[in-house]
Amino acid sequence: MSQQKAEEKKEKLTIVMFSGDLDKALAGFILATTAASMDMDVSMYFTFWGLNILKKNEGKIPSKGLMRKMLNLINRGGSKRLKLSKFNMLGLGTWMMKKLMKEMNYPSIDDFITMAKDMGVKLIPCSTTCGIMGLPDEGSFRSEVGSLAGAAYFLAEARESKIALFI
Amino acid sequence: MSQQKAEEKKEKLTIVMFSGDLDKALAGFILATTAASMDMDVSMYFTFWGLNILKKNEGKIPSKGLMRKMLNLINRGGSKRLKLSKFNMLGLGTWMMKKLMKEMNYPSIDDFITMAKDMGVKLIPCSTTCGIMGLPDEGSFRSEVGSLAGAAYFLAEARESKIALFI
Amino acid sequence: MSQQKAEEKKEKLTIVMFSGDLDKALAGFILATTAASMDMDVSMYFTFWGLNILKKNEGKIPSKGLMRKMLNLINRGGSKRLKLSKFNMLGLGTWMMKKLMKEMNYPSIDDFITMAKDMGVKLIPCSTTCGIMGLPDEGSFRSEVGSLAGAAYFLAEARESKIALFI
Repeated sequence: MSQQKAEEKKEKLTIVMFSGDLDKALAGFILATTAASMDMDVSMYFTFWGLNILKKNEGKIPSKGLMRKMLNLINRGGSKRLKLSKFNMLGLGTWMMKKLMKEMNYPSIDDFITMAKDMGVKLIPCSTTCGIMGLPDEGSFRSEVGSLAGAAYFLAEARESKIALFI
Repeated sequence: MSQQKAEEKKEKLTIVMFSGDLDKALAGFILATTAASMDMDVSMYFTFWGLNILKKNEGKIPSKGLMRKMLNLINRGGSKRLKLSKFNMLGLGTWMMKKLMKEMNYPSIDDFITMAKDMGVKLIPCSTTCGIMGLPDEGSFRSEVGSLAGAAYFLAEARESKIALFI
Repeated sequence: MSQQKAEEKKEKLTIVMFSGDLDKALAGFILATTAASMDMDVSMYFTFWGLNILKKNEGKIPSKGLMRKMLNLINRGGSKRLKLSKFNMLGLGTWMMKKLMKEMNYPSIDDFITMAKDMGVKLIPCSTTCGIMGLPDEGSFRSEVGSLAGAAYFLAEARESKIALFI
């Protein structure tokens, strides 16, 4: 019976998205969408700078307190503001990479988020770091994003996963 | 019998702590202590800059040879000297993050090391990188730290683990 | 029968080499060669900046188009040009680390690539990022490197692996 159950269940991929760098975000979404297309069950768990990937691009982030307001001003985030971890070169390197990807009809981060959502990939912000960084559940993130969850949630998913990665 | 054995054994989490950044150290300890509280068996294996997290905060690091002395002067480490990987801003960003965490009664890295130790998390420095960087077993690390071990030890732990992460 | 099959099969380690930093490259190769010496089956999958580790050291990288030519000029790569992620200090830190390793008769990245290849470790460049970054299969990489493969290949390897890491 346990074998039968294993056959019914899809294999899982769980990714911690710690980084808010454009290149690491791309790596994460390439793996997530490829895994989903291979009929795997995929969860992406966003924490620390990775939360920037999910922040809405327009408007203000509604954080409370002077220091958190400042943090979300400096560390604004949003899929369109991500930068390369290397060779950003005041934006030139990031611009070049985006240009090269577009030239190859390669998806942008925005496209990847939509694709991932459509393929059933779960996009989960880490509740602990949202608390520290002053990111309320409502109003901070784009519409594709699921409910906040803590580290225990990630660990529970990860230990049932065939593959768990920290990016 | 193999099922019975599986029930007796705790599930394992093994983490390579490669980075000495404050934010990555926090991510590692949040996962480690949460996993321990979920009754998992946790090993943290510190290598390269991650060794900085475990260096004692006070006194000199007793390395031999001019170059290793220099390295441990520039790369002094200690839980209180860790910096954010992003937005350190000459220390302002790191100070802000610590302030925000304190405001929420969130543990510091020092608290996390004590908690982890009390919960049975193993804190293991990588013997190979200790050798290269001139960190002798005695006198380099704080008291919570276990014996040094090599990459083979990590791999043996990791392959018995439900979750293995490289942070 | 399935148990018999499991006994015949070697346990696997699969590593994504995303970073082109000297320290992370070392960490990857230490794990890969140690695992191979423990009779594990090892695949290293190089993507984004990690491709720099495998680029040939001599001659020009034969990319097409002005922007890709520029990218491979700035981001030249090659095992001998890798830098530390921290304390590069205009090359001084990287030079010191290499010196300290040599003093201990520790292998260089070049030695590690040869060793890994000899031990049967698969060195696989990611076809997608090769495409974006303008790295043709022929002429970009050193002789030890295997055929290019996509993300689906990595995921297929990783889900059969005991340990999968993203470095």
